[in-house]
This record gives sequence, C-alpha cells and structure tokens, in this order.
Amino acid sequence: MPNIGQRIVMKFGGTSMAGIERIRHVADRVKREVADGNQVAVVVSAMAGETDRLVQLCKDAAPLYDPREYDVVVASGEQVTAGLLAMTLQGMGLNARSYMGWQLPIRASGHASALIEGIDVAVLERVFDDRGIAVIPGFQGVTSEGALATLGRGGSDTSAVALAVAAKADRCDIYTDVDGVYTTDPRIVPRARKLDVVTYEEMLELASVGAKVLQTRSVGLAMRYGMPLQVLSSFEDLPGTMIVADEGTTMERNIITGIAHDRNEAFITLTGLPDRPGTVAAIFRPLADAGINVDMIVQSARAGLKSDLTFTVPKASLAHSVDALAKVKEAGGFEEIVTNTDIVKVSVVGVGMRSNAGIAAQMFDTLAERQINIVAISTSEIKVSVLISEDYTELAVRVLHTAFGLDAPAAALDAGAAA
Amino acid sequence: MPNIGQRIVMKFGGTSMAGIERIRHVADRVKREVADGNQVAVVVSAMAGETDRLVQLCKDAAPLYDPREYDVVVASGEQVTAGLLAMTLQGMGLNARSYMGWQLPIRASGHASALIEGIDVAVLERVFDDRGIAVIPGFQGVTSEGALATLGRGGSDTSAVALAVAAKADRCDIYTDVDGVYTTDPRIVPRARKLDVVTYEEMLELASVGAKVLQTRSVGLAMRYGMPLQVLSSFEDLPGTMIVADEGTTMERNIITGIAHDRNEAFITLTGLPDRPGTVAAIFRPLADAGINVDMIVQSARAGLKSDLTFTVPKASLAHSVDALAKVKEAGGFEEIVTNTDIVKVSVVGVGMRSNAGIAAQMFDTLAERQINIVAISTSEIKVSVLISEDYTELAVRVLHTAFGLDAPAAALDAGAAA
Repeated sequence: MPNIGQRIVMKFGGTSMAGIERIRHVADRVKREVADGNQVAVVVSAMAGETDRLVQLCKDAAPLYDPREYDVVVASGEQVTAGLLAMTLQGMGLNARSYMGWQLPIRASGHASALIEGIDVAVLERVFDDRGIAVIPGFQGVTSEGALATLGRGGSDTSAVALAVAAKADRCDIYTDVDGVYTTDPRIVPRARKLDVVTYEEMLELASVGAKVLQTRSVGLAMRYGMPLQVLSSFEDLPGTMIVADEGTTMERNIITGIAHDRNEAFITLTGLPDRPGTVAAIFRPLADAGINVDMIVQSARAGLKSDLTFTVPKASLAHSVDALAKVKEAGGFEEIVTNTDIVKVSVVGVGMRSNAGIAAQMFDTLAERQINIVAISTSEIKVSVLISEDYTELAVRVLHTAFGLDAPAAALDAGAAA
Repeated sequence: MPNIGQRIVMKFGGTSMAGIERIRHVADRVKREVADGNQVAVVVSAMAGETDRLVQLCKDAAPLYDPREYDVVVASGEQVTAGLLAMTLQGMGLNARSYMGWQLPIRASGHASALIEGIDVAVLERVFDDRGIAVIPGFQGVTSEGALATLGRGGSDTSAVALAVAAKADRCDIYTDVDGVYTTDPRIVPRARKLDVVTYEEMLELASVGAKVLQTRSVGLAMRYGMPLQVLSSFEDLPGTMIVADEGTTMERNIITGIAHDRNEAFITLTGLPDRPGTVAAIFRPLADAGINVDMIVQSARAGLKSDLTFTVPKASLAHSVDALAKVKEAGGFEEIVTNTDIVKVSVVGVGMRSNAGIAAQMFDTLAERQINIVAISTSEIKVSVLISEDYTELAVRVLHTAFGLDAPAAALDAGAAA
C-alpha cells in the first residue's frame, strides 16, 4: 500500500492524559490517524496536576533548588505518560514505542526553562519507515553534558512544534481541553465564535493578551518555520482552529479576528521627571536588568517642564519593579511613584487592520459611548490595546465584540447550544 | 586534610524516602557520614507506595504490557527521589548531584527484571575525588540498546551492592525500616534478639525462608564479591547487623543463628508413580520449563511397587504447576494429584551446624514433644527445614527459638522494652 497520507505530530495536554481511561481515548485518536494512512509521532504532557505536585516537592525539599535537579524530578511526569501511552497503543495492536528526550536526543541548553537547540531525527525516520509510532515525552531534552533538561511550563507545545519542524511534518495537531481558538472568551461573550483559521501573528497577540490556548513560544516557533498548527479538542470530534501564515488568503475575512483581555498587568506612574536627556533610559535600564518586561508606555512630556511617565509591568513583577526604581528615585530620577493593579488590558486583534486606519478610532468611540475611560493606549500592526479600569472588563469586551461584527448569528448560537 | 575515612555506599528504602521530612532525615544521615571524613555514594528507592502505583497504572493500561515500556514508567519513581535528595543535600551546603542509571551508566540486560552487567565508575571516581556525593536511583539501569531497564522488585538493594563492588567501597549500608536481622520474627517471639553479625550464607537462608530484610539477590552478590553489608534503621540511631563472610570467627557463637518461617509454599503429592527409569525426570522437566522453582522433595519409593512423590512450589505457582502436570498424568506419569496450601516451612539456620550432627534430631524431638506432625524435611549444610501444618507456625517457631538457646535474657528484654 503506497503511503498517500501525511506526516503528523500529535500533541496531547495534561487533561487529555489524566488517567488510563483518557489515555485509552488518546490512543483511539492516534489509531484513527494511522488507519487513515498517516505517519504519526505523538508528544505527551504529564497527567494533569502531576507537574504541579513534582514542583511542590522540589520547593519543599529546597526553597532555592538546583535547576539541574529540579529537571530530574519534574521530567519524570512525561516519562510516565509516554510509557503508558506506548503500551496502550501496543495493546491495540499498533507498533508503538516511547523515546525519551535523551534517547532521540532532543538537544537543549540550560535548565528549568531550557531552549531546544536541535532534534536528531534519524531514530524517528527509522520509526516512520517501519510504519511505527514514536511516543515522545514533551517538556524535556538533554544538555550537551548529558543532563536532563526541561523547557519551562507549557513546554510540551514547544516540543511538539520543534519535533514537527525537525521531522518536516505536514502539520502539528495540538489536542487540548478547548476545541479551538475563539473570537473572545466565551465565558464573557456567549456569542463568541470559534475561528476556523487565524494567522500566527494573530494567535501570538491573542495568546499574549489572554487567550491561553497555546504556549506563545510554540506559536513563535511554528511561525518562524511555517509549520501549520491545528488546535482541537481531545474530548469531542469537532473541527478545530488552523493556525497558519498570512498569505493574502484572508481578504474575505473580518478585519478584526478577536477581542482579548489580560488582567495580569499593573501600572506604575512616575511623576516629576526632569526634562534632560537620559531620564527615561535611567528608569528602564534597572527594570531590564531585573528581567522585568515593560509593556505599554505613555509619557506626558511638555518641553522645558517636568513630565509624568506611565507604564505597565506584569502584576507578579510589581513589588520587584518598585524595589528596582527606589534607587532611581534617590538619584533624583523622578519625584513620586504611584501604582495600580485594578486595571485590565483589552485588545482588538486582526491582520485585516493593516489596511484599515479606522480601527483605533472605532475602538475609542465604542468605549467612549459607554463612558469607559482609557488610561493608556498601545498599537501594533495587527493590534490596538487599551488599558482600562478592571471593573469594565466584561462590558468592554462585549461591546467591542459586537461593534466589530464578531457576534455569532442567533441561529448559529442556538445550533451550538442544542448540540 | 588527608582522607582517613572509608568509602561507603548508603542505600535508603522506600519508607525512608516517603516524603520530604524523611528525605531531610536521610540527608542528615548522609551529612554525618561525610562529616566523619568518609567518601559517600547514596542509592535510593522510590517513595513507599510509588512503585506499586506505577505498576498498577501499567496493568490498567495494558494487561499484557511491554516490559520495555513498563521499565520507562516504573523507573520514574527513583528518578524523583534521587533528584529530591540531591537538592536537599545541596540545601544543607553539601556538594551533591544525581546520576541516573543511564548517565553513569549502570549497564543492564533484559527488561522488568534485568540483571546488572557492569557499572562504569569513571564518573563516580571523579565525584569522590571532588569530595562530592553522588545520588543514584536504585532499581534501574540502561540496556546496550540505550533503553531504560529495571531490576525487578527490591532491586535497589542489588543496585547498592553492585555499586559498592564496582567502586571498591569498604562497606554497603542498607538503611531500612527495621533495625537489623533478628533471630526470628519478633512479632511471633517477643524475646527474639537482634544479631550483631551473620554470615552471607545464613542471611541467604534466613531471607529465602521468610526474614525479608534484604533482597536475596543482593546478598548473593555481596557474598560473591566479599562486600560487607550492614543492615540498620533509618529512623533510630542504633547499631545494626553486619553481614560478612564466614572466616572462622564464628567459633564462639551459637550453633544456631535463627529460626525462619515461610508461608508462601504449597505442596503437591502425586500418587501411583510407575517404578521405571525417567519417571521423576518426566515430572520435573515440564515444571522447570515453566520456570517453576521446586523446593522440598520427598519420595516414598519401594522397589518394584508404585510410589508417591511430594514436593513444594511457591503458592503463586500452584495453579500453573497443576496445569503443567496435567499432560504428564495423561501420559501415565502418575495416578492422582493432591495439593495443599495450608502449610508452612520452618527452618533452623546456622553455620555452626556444619560441625554438629545433632541439630536435626533436636529439632524433630522439640516438635514431637508438642505433637507437631512433620510433612516433609529438607536439609542443607547450614539449615534444617520442616514442612508442618500452618496452624502450628507460631508454636513451632517459639519452641524452637527456646530449645536452641536463642531467647534474649529477661533483663535484656526489659532493657529493650524500656529503651
């Protein structure tokens, strides 16, 4: 029988691997792809909750744990699920075997949040040639010194994409506990629609501003190598969302793809900045040195006068940021510091806005109609973000979703509700 | 500072590694040995219950699981504890690192109950030279094909002894949840005494007949290479039991070292065996082919007449044995088969009996005084075993313990109880 199928890397997340019943269900999915004539490699996460348990053990053992030993401990979760899925597939009569990160090898640099440097595919190619199924633990690799390494939380998505790229797969399918990427959070907007297709750029903006379906890093990697991704449900047989390059095929689509929101930012306002060269650099340098990501920046500068500077940082970095800025204040870099955590960033995202100048204006008008005050604004080629009071999160997302024509038709909603 | 200490392999079992508090306690023990100027390598088991949990997952995933994938799954338990102990030691300021079986490597053949073929000690020697502590997961190795392998249940004792032999250690200390080897089971005989020293041969007999302190295989390995073993408690600071070669230093000791019992045997009686050459071989060949260990054998042969044959097999192999013998019966190998599982094997063990012919007679007399019927007898150079009805287990052990002078003096017992 000639192989007319495709080469696919399938990735299953922690909720899909939580227990033998679910692993058996995953094995059924894999079996179906193989029966369709495809070459399949499978990347698995640890059982849901297992990585948290292992991380907690490390924290309890040594608050300042060695990342090298942390990797030894936490890499075990995916080792277990890879072995279990391989034997389950064998039990169904399939030719499956597990290959640990150090066995392929998946070469990685660093510990606890290692980067993948490369994947040797010689072993994988042999498995494909034998019509076998390689089951590979996600999240792990091996350093040049031969030590176990893990990729950081959510790293299994990155493992899957890297493997798909290295093996020149036709597609990387990410099975998860949601059935795709939506125009916005369906818990806020019941008429949110599942998207059939989004571009990598849109997915990056949607992910980084709150739609946590895929690890951002894995989307960036897929974009760099043009690897088509598909997000779909482990639990239901529904079409998912394809994530692909923007090749002008989006002409007929909505200008706006989705509305995202992110509650994980805090903003800092510094008052009384002296009007002299280097003032702003003196503020952001210590933050960068402390590894703090600054996002939106607004400066109210008036020539010859002292000015104010507002910017956002991740909520988790706020205390750290205030510490880092204390020395700048002592040195006369600014007068007062004001912080606020009761804010949310709301963004409209879409590759279509590249050719449409009116999006920002329409967004501001829509929010103004509801008396929603905008604290700060930032824009990119495919995104406009505003910072507003957290109290208005749901209202803002809903009115923008409607204003940009994203609401599902009532009939479609009924069909969805009935299904 | 010149190193005037010894080179010691310390091994900690599952109850000693069950949870962070206990691991911290283990780390204290290790720290003390290092502070005394010793070179130390540590072998660890998985947390108590973890291997059982992983084995059950394999059974649930695929009743006829692939031993290769089974090894991938179950090897993870020791990986976790090795990493946790290494980071705990580091947290105490010690120079510790974990080394997986595949990293040293510990070379093994086969799967699920692999044999250790050899251990490369180059890495270990470097760690010793740097005054570092290598923490090594027990129970695991790597095959010549680069696959994970596990040694079978209790294999961590064997890992520790093999490592001690390969590294030319002065001693292998096995820390466990009992504080040494006793003259008999203290739950049956409160006046049982802890032995300061036993020979390898005695330990093998005591272990194989029921005193499950150490895996038999690890004692055999230590005996072959003359590696001194010490069994001691993880939880209490008490002297343990040394297990050493018999070098004539036992002259002053009791003739009998201990009384053991084993409830895991079943006996099979075959009646009506024809009196012709090859009859017995025709019975034991199919059992051997099925991998069943036959232990005690009694034949009531009378020249020219049909005879009976009685022997014991492990209880777990009884059904399998009866199956294997069905064909022999069809071929006229015997007339009837009778089985009995309500039996126990009680043994008196001691290297001193080599030079004392009266032990067996004294044993039979002691049991006869209590009207305990003997079903079968077997003897070796350092052991006499009898098969009796299971109902008499405790009585037989107690009267033999007293008859052979093993009871602790009443004063010692009080002191022990007060301690």
